[in-house]
Amino acid sequence: MKPDETAKSDCRSDENATKRVPTLYLLPVPLSDVRPDSVMPQCNIDIARSVKYFVVENMRSARRFLKRCDPSIDISSLHMTVLDEHTSSADIPAMLAPMEQGHDIAVVSEAGCPAVADPGSDIVAVAQQRGLNVCPLIGPSSILLSLMGSGFNGQTFAFCGYLPSQADTRTSRLREMQRRIERERQTQIFIETPYRNRRMIDELCRVLPGKMLLCVASDVTGRQQKITTMPLYKWAKADTAYLDRIPAIFLLFS
Amino acid sequence: MKPDETAKSDCRSDENATKRVPTLYLLPVPLSDVRPDSVMPQCNIDIARSVKYFVVENMRSARRFLKRCDPSIDISSLHMTVLDEHTSSADIPAMLAPMEQGHDIAVVSEAGCPAVADPGSDIVAVAQQRGLNVCPLIGPSSILLSLMGSGFNGQTFAFCGYLPSQADTRTSRLREMQRRIERERQTQIFIETPYRNRRMIDELCRVLPGKMLLCVASDVTGRQQKITTMPLYKWAKADTAYLDRIPAIFLLFS
Repeated sequence: MKPDETAKSDCRSDENATKRVPTLYLLPVPLSDVRPDSVMPQCNIDIARSVKYFVVENMRSARRFLKRCDPSIDISSLHMTVLDEHTSSADIPAMLAPMEQGHDIAVVSEAGCPAVADPGSDIVAVAQQRGLNVCPLIGPSSILLSLMGSGFNGQTFAFCGYLPSQADTRTSRLREMQRRIERERQTQIFIETPYRNRRMIDELCRVLPGKMLLCVASDVTGRQQKITTMPLYKWAKADTAYLDRIPAIFLLFS
Repeated sequence: MKPDETAKSDCRSDENATKRVPTLYLLPVPLSDVRPDSVMPQCNIDIARSVKYFVVENMRSARRFLKRCDPSIDISSLHMTVLDEHTSSADIPAMLAPMEQGHDIAVVSEAGCPAVADPGSDIVAVAQQRGLNVCPLIGPSSILLSLMGSGFNGQTFAFCGYLPSQADTRTSRLREMQRRIERERQTQIFIETPYRNRRMIDELCRVLPGKMLLCVASDVTGRQQKITTMPLYKWAKADTAYLDRIPAIFLLFS
């Protein structure tokens, strides 16, 4: 490939500017308190700078993210609409209206990749129904990074979100995960609210075989990042004070 | 956070240099023929430049990637070991020996993120057993990007790799996917060899309900990237010439 071809193709926002195809960008944000350009390619920052219409999970954190991308961004000139778990699906189609006038929109969640373990998929679904151009951008995903760091099977894996809160259903969900690990060799990934991390480990130790492997990935991409894989019988006795109130992700395999 | 704190923490290679903790980096490579810095943060490139020991899926493509990161890298001075699907697991522990001498190692696959739908998890597993420091780096994953762009459920999803080749097993695997979509609302993701893309779509149209949604994401991050979600009955009649021999990923949901 010739260098000039490369330059043209590498920032997809440029390409769209030439073609004038309005695009729905899915713009990741850092998972931890680090500089945006340390966890995403520079062209994401360029897109964050150029887009005027945002659909955001949280207004305050989105403004903060944009200011960290470029302190000179005039936040007050931007159009921001909130899309969170309280948004009615009836309100979503109107959020895409700026694209009909030829504007790009960027979807920004509170942390990580929009539409993965975070709001955003509803607006993408509507954009897909209308045949609009959707462009996911590269950024930090604790699911993907923890899977890479776990040493577990990456040929097949499942992300299950939060476990059910009700005790019986929760135990049978864990048993189902155990079956899928044993029969399908499928790595099982899930999350828990940070203040319950230790309780979650204790529960896994109680319900599942001691030889089963648990990986706990905490503060992924942050200064205290720790990705540790051990059998449950070792986790039962491990010092996990470092996990107290720290965002973590859990992976099981055998 | 003060600016100087940020600067110190943002490149994790710097942090490790200070602490002198040898690290096993999982270093993603581009999925398509684009500049490395267009699909990953700059600090990945800095790590690619500084590491001397590599464990690579393919020698030629790894050299090519490093040259694109920095044409001045002296490839002949680097230590490279191959870890691919033919590697015996008995040979893996020795690959970590440089870490005992205090060197970092970077694992590099042919395309995308090492250890996810690609080799690499075996060496990570051994590193985890030995309590070595493992650091996954951010980069392009067609699985994650296509999920973001599909509009499908990102609260729970499964990646299933390739479908079984034998016809009966293949059909029952598709039926099982249908059940997991319907009962668990779990997005199902899988891959196929590029020259069979159209055959795969025809098979899905034959086996699954016409109303089921299929997303096909092709040439993800490349110049011809296309992420399209439609019901199967529309895919049945769709012109898919653009998919001929193009790497694609398939996602199902309803």
